[in-house]
Amino acid sequence: MELELVAWLRRELPPSAGVLIGPGDDAAVLDWQGRDDLVVTVDMVMDGVDFHLDQVGPEAAGRKALAVNLSDLAAMGAQPVAAVVALALPRRNGLELARGLYRGLLPLAAEFGVSIVGGDTNAWDAPLAVSITLWGSTPGGRPWLRSGARPGDRLFVTGPLGGSILGHHLDFTPRVTEALALRRAIDVHAAIDISDGLALDLARLCQESGCGAELRAERIPLTEAAHTLAAREARGETHPAVSSGSALDHALGDGEDFELLLALPEEAAENLGRDPVAGVALVEIGVCLAEPGLWLVEERGARRPLAPRGFVH
Amino acid sequence: MELELVAWLRRELPPSAGVLIGPGDDAAVLDWQGRDDLVVTVDMVMDGVDFHLDQVGPEAAGRKALAVNLSDLAAMGAQPVAAVVALALPRRNGLELARGLYRGLLPLAAEFGVSIVGGDTNAWDAPLAVSITLWGSTPGGRPWLRSGARPGDRLFVTGPLGGSILGHHLDFTPRVTEALALRRAIDVHAAIDISDGLALDLARLCQESGCGAELRAERIPLTEAAHTLAAREARGETHPAVSSGSALDHALGDGEDFELLLALPEEAAENLGRDPVAGVALVEIGVCLAEPGLWLVEERGARRPLAPRGFVH
Repeated sequence: MELELVAWLRRELPPSAGVLIGPGDDAAVLDWQGRDDLVVTVDMVMDGVDFHLDQVGPEAAGRKALAVNLSDLAAMGAQPVAAVVALALPRRNGLELARGLYRGLLPLAAEFGVSIVGGDTNAWDAPLAVSITLWGSTPGGRPWLRSGARPGDRLFVTGPLGGSILGHHLDFTPRVTEALALRRAIDVHAAIDISDGLALDLARLCQESGCGAELRAERIPLTEAAHTLAAREARGETHPAVSSGSALDHALGDGEDFELLLALPEEAAENLGRDPVAGVALVEIGVCLAEPGLWLVEERGARRPLAPRGFVH
Repeated sequence: MELELVAWLRRELPPSAGVLIGPGDDAAVLDWQGRDDLVVTVDMVMDGVDFHLDQVGPEAAGRKALAVNLSDLAAMGAQPVAAVVALALPRRNGLELARGLYRGLLPLAAEFGVSIVGGDTNAWDAPLAVSITLWGSTPGGRPWLRSGARPGDRLFVTGPLGGSILGHHLDFTPRVTEALALRRAIDVHAAIDISDGLALDLARLCQESGCGAELRAERIPLTEAAHTLAAREARGETHPAVSSGSALDHALGDGEDFELLLALPEEAAENLGRDPVAGVALVEIGVCLAEPGLWLVEERGARRPLAPRGFVH
């Protein structure tokens, strides 16, 4: 539904002097007094959709609300600066819930230098919703976009994928530090955070860049959780919230990994091989192609189309 | 509850380099690259709290979601620039609802030069919530704050008050144009928009400024709606959503007028008497006092304490 809405908005919205990058990217870049280093993003998380509050507790919910926004800024290569927090709280124990949410998000804000500069707190007879708007800066350069990948670019991820439903979707560390270290060290053509699944987010990056891509199945790093889910499913145990399949299927489709997918020019990729960026564990998983379409090359060399499946809002 | 939360946050939040004005004001002023002209505000509106979606329709709801934010920027004397929109949509007809919301808010955005630069659209099994974050600038000066009123300052409002539940809370025009015209013409010490009732919002302005205030009952401009509600109540018809009383009581306590309450230094007030600001209908309603406390001077001269009642979130 979001894609349809974005398409509709792109038709409806007048051309705007105030925005350099419009709806549809991870974040917007504001044309602020002639500068282009102000990046903003907004994400809303909701009880029953992004977590089950009664199972995870308010601290984990508050942490996730900020972490997903930090991940969007990481995908732009931006340094987080400040955020505002809007809360729709169920009436019962609303104040205690609000404090719990802040107890979860404030340490993460402190860790990444984010000032919580304001908010709006409301109570209602409905479940919890948390909307955080976060902005950051990209001093000394333009933000990374989804649209900058070129044929021949090498594709990298910042960590293993799959099975986030087992816990990672709540306790992940947004790849802000890694993004800023990469930004200082090498040329990044395009980036996206893997929120809806590697296959789907790769499809978005390729669509925006006007290219295709080929992934090497055996190179895609798999989490323990992806293996665990696959093993459970092999025993006939299914999880209601995730699709079934092999560990690789989980890595391709589960989503909420919040690792970065990066397109690097060949030279940067080769420099990286000789001289890795300290503290950043990049894994090369494929290459961008001139022709459209996504492909998966399996271990034994078979090449099959890769469906852009994943979590669709 | 919000006041308690803000007090708690003020204790919990570390001193922050990124923010000049913290939680508790209408908007935050960001310390952005050494500038102090970037103002940001966030407001969330919810079905069943701020409107009844099935009665008012999506266009009116979307318009109000942006208008309340514009009113906050008007209270800072800021020029709106850009906004992001986060939606929690009930699953049924979510896309149609989203389009309706945007059909309501886009014309208002265009009217006040706001670029919609991004958003986050979600569906869930719960009512509609809309969270908008709005940025603005105050070129050539600092934003107006609640805290700048001084004893002797004259108090003005930009229009009549009371009874907004009869329709004004949906179709009000945020006082952005008036605020910018005033900013260019005269010195404004402090301002707040009347969202929760004149008495309560005056109490907030006085508390932040460390002063008291005295209002002249006969000067407070009353809407037709305030008279209508008072007349209905005199006939025994009560409205479930508003307190009862005289038209003046409605003006003091109803809230959602979204007029500005301004504290002007005496000289500015006198200049204004000789040379009104074109297009701005200011009504003088009282004066700031050195001693704390709010007072209402009635038509026949009796002076009684004014309770800071109104809509508490």
